[in-house]
Amino acid sequence: MTAPDTSAAPDDGFHVFDTTLRDGAQREGINLTVADKLAIARHLDDFGVGFIEGGWPGANPRDTEFFRRARELPWRHAQLVAFGATRKAGTTAAEDPQVRALLDSGAPVITLVAKSHDRHVELALRTTPDENLAMIADTVRHLRAAGRRVFVDCEHFFDGYSDNPGYALEVVRTAATAGADVVILCDTNGGMLPAQVQATVRTVVADTGARIGIHAQDDTGCAVANTLAAVDAGATHVQCTANGYGERVGNANLFPVVAALELKYGKRVLPPGALQEMTRISHAIAEVVNLTPSTHQPYVGLSAFAHKAGLHASAIKVDPDLYQHIDPELVGNSMRMLVSDMAGRASIELKGRELGYDLEGDRELVGRIVARVKEQELKGYTYEAADASFELLLRDEVTGRASRFFRLESWRAITDQRPDGTVDNEATVKLWAKGERVVATGEGNGPVNALDRALRGGLERTFPELARLQLVDYKVRILAGRSGTHSTTRVLITTGDGTSEWSTVGVADNVIAASWQALEDAYTYGLLRAGLRPTD
Amino acid sequence: MTAPDTSAAPDDGFHVFDTTLRDGAQREGINLTVADKLAIARHLDDFGVGFIEGGWPGANPRDTEFFRRARELPWRHAQLVAFGATRKAGTTAAEDPQVRALLDSGAPVITLVAKSHDRHVELALRTTPDENLAMIADTVRHLRAAGRRVFVDCEHFFDGYSDNPGYALEVVRTAATAGADVVILCDTNGGMLPAQVQATVRTVVADTGARIGIHAQDDTGCAVANTLAAVDAGATHVQCTANGYGERVGNANLFPVVAALELKYGKRVLPPGALQEMTRISHAIAEVVNLTPSTHQPYVGLSAFAHKAGLHASAIKVDPDLYQHIDPELVGNSMRMLVSDMAGRASIELKGRELGYDLEGDRELVGRIVARVKEQELKGYTYEAADASFELLLRDEVTGRASRFFRLESWRAITDQRPDGTVDNEATVKLWAKGERVVATGEGNGPVNALDRALRGGLERTFPELARLQLVDYKVRILAGRSGTHSTTRVLITTGDGTSEWSTVGVADNVIAASWQALEDAYTYGLLRAGLRPTD
Repeated sequence: MTAPDTSAAPDDGFHVFDTTLRDGAQREGINLTVADKLAIARHLDDFGVGFIEGGWPGANPRDTEFFRRARELPWRHAQLVAFGATRKAGTTAAEDPQVRALLDSGAPVITLVAKSHDRHVELALRTTPDENLAMIADTVRHLRAAGRRVFVDCEHFFDGYSDNPGYALEVVRTAATAGADVVILCDTNGGMLPAQVQATVRTVVADTGARIGIHAQDDTGCAVANTLAAVDAGATHVQCTANGYGERVGNANLFPVVAALELKYGKRVLPPGALQEMTRISHAIAEVVNLTPSTHQPYVGLSAFAHKAGLHASAIKVDPDLYQHIDPELVGNSMRMLVSDMAGRASIELKGRELGYDLEGDRELVGRIVARVKEQELKGYTYEAADASFELLLRDEVTGRASRFFRLESWRAITDQRPDGTVDNEATVKLWAKGERVVATGEGNGPVNALDRALRGGLERTFPELARLQLVDYKVRILAGRSGTHSTTRVLITTGDGTSEWSTVGVADNVIAASWQALEDAYTYGLLRAGLRPTD
Repeated sequence: MTAPDTSAAPDDGFHVFDTTLRDGAQREGINLTVADKLAIARHLDDFGVGFIEGGWPGANPRDTEFFRRARELPWRHAQLVAFGATRKAGTTAAEDPQVRALLDSGAPVITLVAKSHDRHVELALRTTPDENLAMIADTVRHLRAAGRRVFVDCEHFFDGYSDNPGYALEVVRTAATAGADVVILCDTNGGMLPAQVQATVRTVVADTGARIGIHAQDDTGCAVANTLAAVDAGATHVQCTANGYGERVGNANLFPVVAALELKYGKRVLPPGALQEMTRISHAIAEVVNLTPSTHQPYVGLSAFAHKAGLHASAIKVDPDLYQHIDPELVGNSMRMLVSDMAGRASIELKGRELGYDLEGDRELVGRIVARVKEQELKGYTYEAADASFELLLRDEVTGRASRFFRLESWRAITDQRPDGTVDNEATVKLWAKGERVVATGEGNGPVNALDRALRGGLERTFPELARLQLVDYKVRILAGRSGTHSTTRVLITTGDGTSEWSTVGVADNVIAASWQALEDAYTYGLLRAGLRPTD
């Protein structure tokens, strides 16, 4: 085995330690293949974290395989970390196969999990507090003698410290004395609040003199704050996961932690330029784990810099800093103006600028667009989640004519529940495209799906570009559904072409007619994106 | 106008102030009707918050209407709060129509938003710092003279304090001196971290002697921690939103804030028993706003007490406290991965008792109901918001037979868009009731409405009781709508008979079939309520 290249080791004064691949993978719904783990590790390395904890080699074939493949790759910033436990009670580290597997992984850094709560030592480990200390010291020394850097995770440290501070401190001292570079205090149950974390870390730093790290879970909704509280108290190593993935509620989210350190503390913890990649990397990792990126994640969420209120929008035009705590570009995100019923001229102008239309010179045009949006919103349309429909509206007003590729004559949707209980859906559309009349029928698992297939079937001969478009998401909302009121249905459709996605809206008395409108906008926008020019 | 009833005023020593209906509604994707707002307010009142900020009366017809309807209702715990701004520059509060609308709302409490950052006064308000102080003092005094309690939200307080502490403090003093009961420091941009919040609140409390509240936004991922930091520093009023809904990333989440105060601080801030309702209320509010409840929300998320690691699972068997920071039942959640709150034996028994069925003696029956609920929930049914469908299920299991008044043979729904643009909806049902075959056709403004009319038309001769029933609300949710997935539609229908309302659920591949199921349950339940006995 060749020694891993450690020349890319980051400045050692402060550690950004990522455990997405180990602790983050405990999140309900995440199941990573070796290829997934490698892909995530590359993203994290690009982002510039100092350490990537890859898993527990020896615990399962997947993690062993990950380390075999990962150590062959050229890492730019990060060092790979193997996670494992202290040796078993009543043996030696040299004889313990679990410890052997950690060395065999070839990882230059090893994190050992150790019990620091005496009650857990007895109940879960079923050994004595003294033997637990011996296990820690022996295992750390053994790995150090083999040339590895060692970090020790003190599991349940805060609860342990609160029950028996003397023993918890002894665990920290034992690990540090045996040669652990960093001793990490873990809030394993996630029950801590920042004030407690800060007081405890401060005492541990003062009492032991050890280099201290923090590992926080988000069960109280305070994992980011707990991590920062530990840094305030002297911790110089933070363990986090991308997007806060992790068991139960999750772990401290890497992105708001590093953003706070860089932008609020003025601490350089990432390579130059990395922070601007944060939004992209957050979304890319969500793609790999196959979870929809949280729209409301701090800094990197789609909504993180989205403004709705007209009151705010007019102030933002004066000075964006008035309603933003940072410039979104610092984290690779951007400001979005939501077109809502609270909106006025200022947000329309900002939104136009975002879409590449300079409207500011033309007060009359902006006035027309504002009036049109208000009129549509009164009917139940909403453009804040339907950018493509808004852009079509804007485009129509700017060019003075409707951007349409086809013209509807009529459609019909039939849903039938037969006596045997099966349900059939069939739809027919009649329309005109490039001067020709088209009649097409489709079947589907619902009336809208049947309508979509009929429309697509009818148009694909004329517009082969439509073959690439896919219905990605479909939402229905009934508006004003209370008694006596005439209820209205709003449909939002998200469509993709493999490289990007767009959303469109339709509003009508009934769900099928509303869906038809959203589908019509979706296909029109898709054809515009494909570079086609409207035919009428 | 009659004076609002304030006899339900909570203990005034500490305020839990909810602004879901005002600031929470700024969240991207939330659009509340008056009925939605009333439904959310009832849930919040059940939960026992002290204040419910309902909106900005006068700013739009919807908020004005909300206050008109809300003040007629009997509130158990909360007082209604109207939100508005200080008077315009260069006029008097008595002459300002916006201030007039606040009084006209009838709300016993009014929150005024005031600028406390001198730069905003100049740039956004375009007036002088002195006039801003006069606007605050004049408006507070005017509202106090009219017998209202007044809270003042200091917008952008933390940024303002950091730029010009003297002016920010002067704003607090002015508001308090004029008669505001609480002055709330708002982190409007959400850029603060707990240490800064704590230091600032401490200084403001010491310097001004005013009663201080906190309003935190979650842009750094620290809104809960910032709220608690302010409490640590002497704030006695916390402004939060259910599920953390709010502009951009969101507001301080009500649920982890009150859970921390009750469970970690040992502070009673809710009525007895309310905390155990927290999970249910969080999910119910998500249903009303039509957002999927976050599975990873602290305390109340489906995954909040879900355990995956084998290591943890075995330790949990030894002692659940080893891996849980609190007993999940304290917040109405549970440790196992349950499909819903309902799926446990204890909750089924409780729910049965609530509905008048004593199930506790019959373990086998309860086991059968639990199994049936789980099986249905796997298909996408949810009974949290569909009590009537749950009662029918329970009744069927208790009596050993289906409670049905009619039996479907088949139905068909046709929706047509004609060349002139008009849309027709027609539905036909074929069914058996009291031994007779009925064929009926209905028209409506949508396919579901047409189906409802056909069903009603077909049954009313046999069951004249149906004439009193009215469709009150209708909600559609698409489950698992991402590409490649087979998507499922869930429909929730609320029906009323003039004295009470009940909700039913249907799940199917398509919206019409799902609606049919919910309608069938709705009418069956309505006939049971009317005292009829099932015929087959």
